[in-house]
Amino acid sequence: MEKIKRLQQDFATFLEQTDFGGQPKELYEPIAYTILQSGKRLRPMLCLLANDMLGGDEQQALWPALALETFHNFTLIHDDIMDKAPLRRGKETVYQKWNSDIAILSGDAMLAKAFQFALKPKKGAELAQQLGKVAIEICEGQQMDLNFETQKEVTIDDYLEMIRLKTAVLLATALQMGATVAEAKPADIQALYDFGINIGMSFQLQDDILDLYSDVEVFGKRHGGDIADNKKTYLYLKALELAPERDRKRLQQLFALRIDHDEEEKIEEVEAIYDSLDIKGEVEQVIAEYDRKAFQALDSIGLPEERKRHLRTYAELLSGRRK
Amino acid sequence: MEKIKRLQQDFATFLEQTDFGGQPKELYEPIAYTILQSGKRLRPMLCLLANDMLGGDEQQALWPALALETFHNFTLIHDDIMDKAPLRRGKETVYQKWNSDIAILSGDAMLAKAFQFALKPKKGAELAQQLGKVAIEICEGQQMDLNFETQKEVTIDDYLEMIRLKTAVLLATALQMGATVAEAKPADIQALYDFGINIGMSFQLQDDILDLYSDVEVFGKRHGGDIADNKKTYLYLKALELAPERDRKRLQQLFALRIDHDEEEKIEEVEAIYDSLDIKGEVEQVIAEYDRKAFQALDSIGLPEERKRHLRTYAELLSGRRK
Repeated sequence: MEKIKRLQQDFATFLEQTDFGGQPKELYEPIAYTILQSGKRLRPMLCLLANDMLGGDEQQALWPALALETFHNFTLIHDDIMDKAPLRRGKETVYQKWNSDIAILSGDAMLAKAFQFALKPKKGAELAQQLGKVAIEICEGQQMDLNFETQKEVTIDDYLEMIRLKTAVLLATALQMGATVAEAKPADIQALYDFGINIGMSFQLQDDILDLYSDVEVFGKRHGGDIADNKKTYLYLKALELAPERDRKRLQQLFALRIDHDEEEKIEEVEAIYDSLDIKGEVEQVIAEYDRKAFQALDSIGLPEERKRHLRTYAELLSGRRK
Repeated sequence: MEKIKRLQQDFATFLEQTDFGGQPKELYEPIAYTILQSGKRLRPMLCLLANDMLGGDEQQALWPALALETFHNFTLIHDDIMDKAPLRRGKETVYQKWNSDIAILSGDAMLAKAFQFALKPKKGAELAQQLGKVAIEICEGQQMDLNFETQKEVTIDDYLEMIRLKTAVLLATALQMGATVAEAKPADIQALYDFGINIGMSFQLQDDILDLYSDVEVFGKRHGGDIADNKKTYLYLKALELAPERDRKRLQQLFALRIDHDEEEKIEEVEAIYDSLDIKGEVEQVIAEYDRKAFQALDSIGLPEERKRHLRTYAELLSGRRK
């Protein structure tokens, strides 16, 4: 845990010392506002931990870590416009606090900055190619997610592909970049990428569960928000698959309701159907399978267990295996 | 002219053969729709001509040329959202034909693709750094332009800095990238960059003049559109500087009017003030000075005149020196 804390601190310091730019202030204030908010720094941490595990130079790895965090924050700023989200990490979103023109433009500048940061260390061209690939995948994932809102038939495979593109590939790329800047063997870079995809899938599916089955106080989101928003999550799609005809029809009806309907009542009714089918148990099985594959990939890397310890601990914290 | 036509044709072929992606189609259709429209291909042409002049390999230079065109089209898609522009090159803009979410997202994907293309040839990391720098400058220029709409005091220097960032730096970078991929000497790369800045400034100021003093049929834009839109162009700012007190106040009044005012009448009145001050002549002097500096930079490159011929011809066509 000492190592994890130290890397977190090093990244925080590096971020604070970064000059994102100054004028015109309408462009740069939203960037500072977004990136200096304390997030989990999940992606930079995966990058730094992968690099550390493989014996890379931390000073070099801070650049892709910064690129990843800048890139991730760009996606948040643009996604919040599309999702009309009023709040992010408990504070007003950029398009809400300023306006959507400014949110578009500062997001664009952050995307360009992310490439500049990725190009800084050795292996910069390779890191920038990895960033380009994941950037396009994430646009595809976000577009799929937007499509799902109006798309009549969404299959479980569609949904898994969407969360792979929208969430998992960036965690995988964070590990890949850390391994690349450490000049690791291609097989180890690939194993870490696979590890990232699987913990990413697990992570997102847990998020789907937490929407409904979590302590609101701890988790900080409203109970059943996905249901109120008619979000076609894994829970909903699995329930459609397993439910008897009558419940299936009822679910579809409930997910066609607009927000003017009694929210509490709707959430309760959906929850009752989910519980009757043990949807939570179903999703937990799928999550366990992704976790198993993830740690299998990590195990396949030919390094003493001692070297893998920090990354393993961090991933276990994320997956909820370790509290 | 044969060389210019051939490079244009080569670029068109290269562009047509590029696979921008397929699924989800809501992401990729707007990209194809935008980039396959026949524009002037000004930026790729400057890149290819610079590379050709310096004896570079055309196959290598097609990559930064493609990066530049993709990047430029990304800026158009996002700018059109901010400017609420209904038409672009006579066709519906992306946000208008689809919606602004799709316009944001396909623009983002194009920006990422532009970096991927820049990274392909030799010197890829350097080309991508150049693209990153210009991308940020262009965001700054666009933000300044947005600020001018509500900013009370805009100086001529502010305006020149805005068009430098919004227009000139991309032409300069196009030439710089062509010279970089040709592995030219740093001094020659710099001279071409300076050439680009100056033709870019000249180009934009001519655009300001053409808004008012051009044959609408040929130019294809409405007469006095900038005046109707209260755009603080060089013409307006120079007129404010030179006009006697009464005319200055009147100009400020006219540029505070909303569109419900009689447009024709307003344009006529502004035009009369401009003419009384010979604003057109004033701007033409400034343009001539930028052109002089541009060709001085080109002259400073130690190559036989024969090698510079195509780029010179192309730039003369642009600057209107050659019809």
